[in-house]
Amino acid sequence: MSITGNKQDLARLTDEIIDSYRRHPATQYIGSTYLPNRETIISLVNTIREVLFPGFFGRQNIVESDLPFHISSILGTVRDMLFDQVRRSLRHRHQRTGKGECPDCDATAAAITDEFLGSIPQLRGILATDAQAAFDGDPAAGSIDEIIFCYPGYLAVTIYRIAHELHRLGVPLIPRIMTEYAHSLTGIDIHPGAEIGEYFFIDHGTGVVVGETTMIGTNVRIYQGVTLGALSTRGGQSLRGTKRHPTIQDGVLIYPNASILGGDTVIGQGATINGNVFITQSVPPHTRVSVKHPELQYRNRPPREFAQEAPPDFQI
Amino acid sequence: MSITGNKQDLARLTDEIIDSYRRHPATQYIGSTYLPNRETIISLVNTIREVLFPGFFGRQNIVESDLPFHISSILGTVRDMLFDQVRRSLRHRHQRTGKGECPDCDATAAAITDEFLGSIPQLRGILATDAQAAFDGDPAAGSIDEIIFCYPGYLAVTIYRIAHELHRLGVPLIPRIMTEYAHSLTGIDIHPGAEIGEYFFIDHGTGVVVGETTMIGTNVRIYQGVTLGALSTRGGQSLRGTKRHPTIQDGVLIYPNASILGGDTVIGQGATINGNVFITQSVPPHTRVSVKHPELQYRNRPPREFAQEAPPDFQI
Amino acid sequence: MSITGNKQDLARLTDEIIDSYRRHPATQYIGSTYLPNRETIISLVNTIREVLFPGFFGRQNIVESDLPFHISSILGTVRDMLFDQVRRSLRHRHQRTGKGECPDCDATAAAITDEFLGSIPQLRGILATDAQAAFDGDPAAGSIDEIIFCYPGYLAVTIYRIAHELHRLGVPLIPRIMTEYAHSLTGIDIHPGAEIGEYFFIDHGTGVVVGETTMIGTNVRIYQGVTLGALSTRGGQSLRGTKRHPTIQDGVLIYPNASILGGDTVIGQGATINGNVFITQSVPPHTRVSVKHPELQYRNRPPREFAQEAPPDFQI
Repeated sequence: MSITGNKQDLARLTDEIIDSYRRHPATQYIGSTYLPNRETIISLVNTIREVLFPGFFGRQNIVESDLPFHISSILGTVRDMLFDQVRRSLRHRHQRTGKGECPDCDATAAAITDEFLGSIPQLRGILATDAQAAFDGDPAAGSIDEIIFCYPGYLAVTIYRIAHELHRLGVPLIPRIMTEYAHSLTGIDIHPGAEIGEYFFIDHGTGVVVGETTMIGTNVRIYQGVTLGALSTRGGQSLRGTKRHPTIQDGVLIYPNASILGGDTVIGQGATINGNVFITQSVPPHTRVSVKHPELQYRNRPPREFAQEAPPDFQI
Repeated sequence: MSITGNKQDLARLTDEIIDSYRRHPATQYIGSTYLPNRETIISLVNTIREVLFPGFFGRQNIVESDLPFHISSILGTVRDMLFDQVRRSLRHRHQRTGKGECPDCDATAAAITDEFLGSIPQLRGILATDAQAAFDGDPAAGSIDEIIFCYPGYLAVTIYRIAHELHRLGVPLIPRIMTEYAHSLTGIDIHPGAEIGEYFFIDHGTGVVVGETTMIGTNVRIYQGVTLGALSTRGGQSLRGTKRHPTIQDGVLIYPNASILGGDTVIGQGATINGNVFITQSVPPHTRVSVKHPELQYRNRPPREFAQEAPPDFQI
Repeated sequence: MSITGNKQDLARLTDEIIDSYRRHPATQYIGSTYLPNRETIISLVNTIREVLFPGFFGRQNIVESDLPFHISSILGTVRDMLFDQVRRSLRHRHQRTGKGECPDCDATAAAITDEFLGSIPQLRGILATDAQAAFDGDPAAGSIDEIIFCYPGYLAVTIYRIAHELHRLGVPLIPRIMTEYAHSLTGIDIHPGAEIGEYFFIDHGTGVVVGETTMIGTNVRIYQGVTLGALSTRGGQSLRGTKRHPTIQDGVLIYPNASILGGDTVIGQGATINGNVFITQSVPPHTRVSVKHPELQYRNRPPREFAQEAPPDFQI
């Protein structure tokens, strides 16, 4: 029984597995020196949130006089982590395309890091409008604190805004790792390439998908299960780079589980899309779109003991 | 290149960011001494689960003779963490409303902590009915152990029941942080204000939303994607405190992706709501509601190589 | 006030809680010696991912000459953890059925562990086809690296394939703990008992449910919110073991939020199921099924200030 420690069995299995690395090279990274690290990127996102929302996350009870030291110390950490990961992702892409050394990668990574850090005050400005939008839009919100502490929509939008800035600066891989981290935490899947205006709110949020080429104006609110998606994707990689996802203009409200599909679909300013609506065509401004819900059928069911009945004609 | 360590650039950026804390004060907490801590609250939830389900979570192989020591030791930890967080959340709310010192906050926090701890045996009683409901309701459940170990619906309901008890005792912020932690782990979003009877089961669960003023009787089972929600929320904060979400009576079964909306909507005892039904009106007891599913359209597609076709008329 | 440390109160509460363990024995595990451990199983899954995708997860910058040592060292860890957990789960099941000692449990656990380890090269082969399917199927995928790093569908399928292998080998509890861990991370709920062919891709994925007795061929792609589920589950445990979930043949594509229900439902080879379709009957091969979407209703809404309107006739 090899479990007792038959070393030959383990050695043979090791050989077979290493052989499988050669047979399927796309799913291994032996010998590569510049791969970004998912754990570090997650830690980076959370450190950036400490700067964005001081006192809420990370160290609490910060006194005003310590603030410059506290913030510049976190910024130094963010700068070092971000520079290293951006550098890795640039070199990694360069390596993948088989171009050999990358003499410019470090300078580019440094410039991107600086530009990102410089954008933090603006990011805070936009995120303040998003927090206000959540409070104004949800009667269940007790305070803005509650939103920042625990609203999944606010967390997903915060991480999206960080990732989008890096995506805009041309960073590969890292922005998507960030938004998929948010997706994992919230069930909200926003591609970092989407463009989203300020005062944006996603309520509940589980199941929301916002595709790569979506454009969203300011003052838009969407609910759980909303898909802003593509029409056919049978074309696969041949569709890469085309506008496949809709445009949502200012002041639009989209209720739960609505699907809005297609790159030419424009939802006009101030429109309301009701729940469960399925749209593949444009909607004029200031229009409310609802679905004529299919007729419901009612049938009497005599009282019975729960969990003991399974009538053959029963259908979900 | 400032990345190499230009201290002046970092100092200037620090100033700009601190300036943004002044311009957008709602999204920072400098100088506040009494903010609850999300990480501590998550740790508290998991410590309470060790008391609720001894042997399943936390220390394993507890022998019966060690039990009093083991449990009272965990209870002491729960008491200290809970008292401190409740105290913070009460003082925080007090501070926010600008009323200065809070002479009663500590005594109130102590009384709440005691009352919560005293409710643990009852909580265990209700959670035993929920575990039984999951086993009785799911043919894929191999044992009650499997449910407690890994059913997301059971985890979400456990955390909801803890949070609801604290909500009932008037604790701000903390209950919602707890249920949003559950939401993050399970995709099930139950507001701590909802009222839910015993023998309750949510199967699969991703995308479930149970709004703040929902009332659910005993022996209710719901599936993934079910929304128990509000009608229009255009009114925002002006709707705060009104009953906006439905009432679900005893013995109701709600299949996947059904939406039941509105504060006056009552689903009568023993009713069954079939999958994808969209309801904004009350349903009499012992009634099965199904939707006349819209007609399906079938069209022949000749065999083709996968991923190489993108017909222009193709539509999701 | 007992919070100050009244030891008698704590002792009384401890007694009450211990008493509740006696009254509700199904939700406690005092004195049991062989319960699997959820945290260890999660750690095991992630260690297996280090062997499956070297360089992506766990240690980076592995040089080729270190590979045999590195891999056999991880394999040794996987073997020890897996053997111990499988042994516990077998003994635990044995104990539960009241059969006393389990003289064969250890030998069975060892054989299962060996067989699982031996299947790793094949697992890598199948997972390479899944990664290719994701890249081929998603125009937003920048590279196969991106898929392995952060696609939730790929993570869920990886964990499902590990869990399915253990399920096939007759291991109780552990496979479901693994797939529910994936469900928690991704919102994708695949039962370890489902059978799924190679070149399988789930895009976005939140809300996907693949039931226990589902059978899926090769080259199948599904999107967020798709349910491959059962018809009535009123029968509860009496339905255990019956085929309750559909069969999906090779080359089928299922767009978002479609529901396909019932154990006799077969979706024929090369068929396409469009978004939001609700199916309880079989579909012939090479057929596209779409739903005649219910008519949309458009109504003009004059421009208004956002969040200040709540017309009584307004309906989601």
